[in-house]
Amino acid sequence: MNSDKFEKVAGNGLISRRHLLGMGLGGMSLAATGSLLGADAGLQIPGWSKTPGPGPSAYGAPSAHTQLQRVAGAPNPLYPGGGVSRTPLQHMQGIITPNSLHFERHHAGIPDIDPAGHQLVINGLVRQPLVFSYENLLKYPMVSKVYFIECSGNGNSNTVGAAGGSAQSIHGLVSCSEWTGVPLSTLLDEAGVLPEARWVAAVGADAASMGRSVPIEKAVDDVLVALFQNGEPVRPEQGYPMRLFVPGWEGNISVKWLTQLKLLNGPAQFRDETSKYTDPLPDRSARQFTFPMETKSLITSPSGEMTLPRAGIYKITGLAWSGSGSIRGVEVSADGGRTWADALLESEQWDKALTRFSIPWEWNGGDAILQSRAIDSAGNVQLTREAVIADRGTDAFYHNPGIQSWAVSSQGDVSSVAV
Amino acid sequence: MNSDKFEKVAGNGLISRRHLLGMGLGGMSLAATGSLLGADAGLQIPGWSKTPGPGPSAYGAPSAHTQLQRVAGAPNPLYPGGGVSRTPLQHMQGIITPNSLHFERHHAGIPDIDPAGHQLVINGLVRQPLVFSYENLLKYPMVSKVYFIECSGNGNSNTVGAAGGSAQSIHGLVSCSEWTGVPLSTLLDEAGVLPEARWVAAVGADAASMGRSVPIEKAVDDVLVALFQNGEPVRPEQGYPMRLFVPGWEGNISVKWLTQLKLLNGPAQFRDETSKYTDPLPDRSARQFTFPMETKSLITSPSGEMTLPRAGIYKITGLAWSGSGSIRGVEVSADGGRTWADALLESEQWDKALTRFSIPWEWNGGDAILQSRAIDSAGNVQLTREAVIADRGTDAFYHNPGIQSWAVSSQGDVSSVAV
Repeated sequence: MNSDKFEKVAGNGLISRRHLLGMGLGGMSLAATGSLLGADAGLQIPGWSKTPGPGPSAYGAPSAHTQLQRVAGAPNPLYPGGGVSRTPLQHMQGIITPNSLHFERHHAGIPDIDPAGHQLVINGLVRQPLVFSYENLLKYPMVSKVYFIECSGNGNSNTVGAAGGSAQSIHGLVSCSEWTGVPLSTLLDEAGVLPEARWVAAVGADAASMGRSVPIEKAVDDVLVALFQNGEPVRPEQGYPMRLFVPGWEGNISVKWLTQLKLLNGPAQFRDETSKYTDPLPDRSARQFTFPMETKSLITSPSGEMTLPRAGIYKITGLAWSGSGSIRGVEVSADGGRTWADALLESEQWDKALTRFSIPWEWNGGDAILQSRAIDSAGNVQLTREAVIADRGTDAFYHNPGIQSWAVSSQGDVSSVAV
Repeated sequence: MNSDKFEKVAGNGLISRRHLLGMGLGGMSLAATGSLLGADAGLQIPGWSKTPGPGPSAYGAPSAHTQLQRVAGAPNPLYPGGGVSRTPLQHMQGIITPNSLHFERHHAGIPDIDPAGHQLVINGLVRQPLVFSYENLLKYPMVSKVYFIECSGNGNSNTVGAAGGSAQSIHGLVSCSEWTGVPLSTLLDEAGVLPEARWVAAVGADAASMGRSVPIEKAVDDVLVALFQNGEPVRPEQGYPMRLFVPGWEGNISVKWLTQLKLLNGPAQFRDETSKYTDPLPDRSARQFTFPMETKSLITSPSGEMTLPRAGIYKITGLAWSGSGSIRGVEVSADGGRTWADALLESEQWDKALTRFSIPWEWNGGDAILQSRAIDSAGNVQLTREAVIADRGTDAFYHNPGIQSWAVSSQGDVSSVAV
C-alpha cells in the first residue's frame, strides 16, 4: 500500500511530476542536521579538503569513482573487427552522449584513416564530378545540430521476448551528439545534380565498403557530411575524418568513413540494404528501405539488473525520441499499462534529438511493472510490443520501438519482461 | 585586389554568407576529376580500406591524427595545484566542448572526492537545515540545459594589449556543455528560506575552500546544483561530484566541489570576492559583484599564430555569447572595423550558450585586420577594446569582452594586435 501524503496521479505509486516539497527523497537524512549544522561547528572536514590536489591537465578523464563504459557484444570470428558496443544509458543523465561513450557498430572494424590521404568523391549523374579533400570541406559553411542516432537493430531482444538484460544491453544502440558538418545539399549543388538522379549511393572507406542509398529528397533536405561531433573532430569509431549523417533515419545509413557519393536513378541495392537492414515479414515478404526510426521511449532507471534497496520514493527517469520530429510528451505507468501519468520533460524537446523525462514514484515494496510511452510532434504514439510483433512478427530483426516493461519484484529486483 | 566573381558585402574581401556555388573553395582540386572518376575505374583504394581494423572498445579516444589539447598556464609554486588550462578553440567547430577539453581554473588543485563521503549542507537563515548525500540528490527532478561558462579573467591579455597569442591562449577560458542538475530553488524550498535571507554563500570542498556569494534573486532563478556534464557525471576538474552552476555569470561563482550553501542577509565577503574577482578602476575604487559576462564574440579561425598559405578563399568562423541572453547576430570586418557584414549563424542561438558564426572571405594577399562584433537578444552590442579600457583602465584584470583584432600580414601570418 502506498502512503497518502503525496498527490498520486496514477496507480501503484506514481506521484505528480510537480510534487517536490517534503518528500524526504530516498532516505535523505534530516534527523541530525539541526544540531550538527546549527553553528557550522560540527561540519566534518574530509581529508580531500585538507591538502591541494593535482593541477590542470592537457586532456581530462572521468573520476575513478565513476564506471561508465560501453559494453561490447561478443566478437564474431567471421567478421574481424565487426560488432557493436552499447552506451551505458542507465548511468547517464541529460541527453548528450560523451564521444567516448557513443555506441558503435562496425562491419569490418575501424580504419585508421590519415585525413591528408582521404578523399570524398561525388560522381555519377552530376554535371561535374568532384573530389574533396578534408581541408577543402573545412572551408564550407556548416550546420551544427543536436541529433540522436539509433541502430535499427536496437531493442531487438525486447521484441523477440528474450528475458533479462539491462537498459544498456537491450537499448544501448542509441546515442545523441551535436553533429557539425557541411549540408550535403551544398556539395550536390556544386556538382550539379542531373534531373534523372533520384538516389545518392554512399560508400565508406572501411574494409567492408559499407554502402547505403539515400533518396534524393532526403539527401537535399537535412543530411550532413559531418566532420565534428560535440565540438571535436568525429571520433575514429564514428567515421573519422567524415561520415554521412542522415537525421532521424536508421543509423546504418549514416555511412561512416565516407569516401564516395554517387548519384543514381535508383537505389544501388548494396549488400547492406538487401541481405541486411531489410525486415522479413510474417508472410515471407520483406520490407526494404524502412528509414525513419519510430517513436520510442525507455525508462533508464530503475531498469533491468538494478536492485531497489527498500520501499520508498524513487525517481523514474528515461529517454524518448522520434525520427519524425520532436517529443511532445511521455507517459509513465507503474502498473503494467493499466493507468498512466504525464512525466516531466527535463530537457528541451529538439527535433530528432533525445528528450529526458522523469516522474517521482513511491514503491510500496510490492510487485510493479514500469513502462513508458512517448508521443511525438506528428502525433505518433509509441507502439506496444504486441503491436510491433503483430505487424512484423518476431523474425524482423530491425525496427523494434515497442514499449519496454521493467518488472520490480517484492525483493526489489528489476528485470526485463515481455508483457 | 579582390576578384570580381563573388558578391562582396563589406570591404577587403568579405563575401555574402549566402554565397556558396562555384567558389572553388580553398583550392578544391576539380581539374582531373572528369576522367579520374568517370567510370569509377581510377579510384585509388587506400591501404586502410583493404584490411579490417580493430573492433569496439569500452571508452573511446580521438584519432591520433588530431591534436586537440588544453594548454596549461605556468604553475605558481605559491599555489600548489592552482592555475588554468585553456580550451583549443581554434581547432573546434560547433558549440559543445567535449568534457576532456573543458577549460580549468583551480585555486588549490583537484580534490579526489569519493561521492559516498561527500555532503552538501544547506544552513544559515533557513527553517530547517538539511544535509544531502550524492545519492539523495540523484533522486530529485533535474533540468538539462546547454550553457557556456567563462572565467571572468578571460581575454585579459587582449585588453592590456600584450601582443601575440592564439585564440586558445587569449580566450580559451570559455567552454560550453549540457549541464544537468537539481534546480537550487528546489533544494532551498525544502530547507525553507527565511524572509531575511538575501544571499546564498557557496563553499567548495577543495583545499582553497573556494567561496562565493550569490544574490537570492539569482539563486532561485536558474541556478543548478549540477551533477552531470554532457551526459556523464561532472568531471573531477569541473567539481565532481557536484558543482554550483550559475548561468551567464562569471565562472568563479559556479563553485566546484560544492559542499555548503549558507543563507545570509548579506554577501559573505569571501577572499575570492574581495581580494580577487573585483575590478580596480582608474579612480582607485573597485567594482565588486560584477556578475554577468558581457556580450562577446571571437574569430577562432583564422586566428593568432596561424598562417594562411596563399591568397584565396577562406572561411572565417568563430563563437559569440552573452551572459544576458541569446545571440541575435554577429558582424565581421576584414578592414579593421571600417566596414562590417552579417555573418551566418551556423548553430542554434540558445540562451546563455555559445553560438557559432561564419562568413566566406577572399584574402587578396595584402594586409587585413579581422574582427567580429556580437549583439545579444537584449540589444547589447559587444564593446570595443578602447571602450573597455576607457571604462575600466588596464588594471582591471576581469571582464574583458572587447573586440579581438587579428592582423593578417602579406606573408599570411596571423597575430593578435591592439587597434
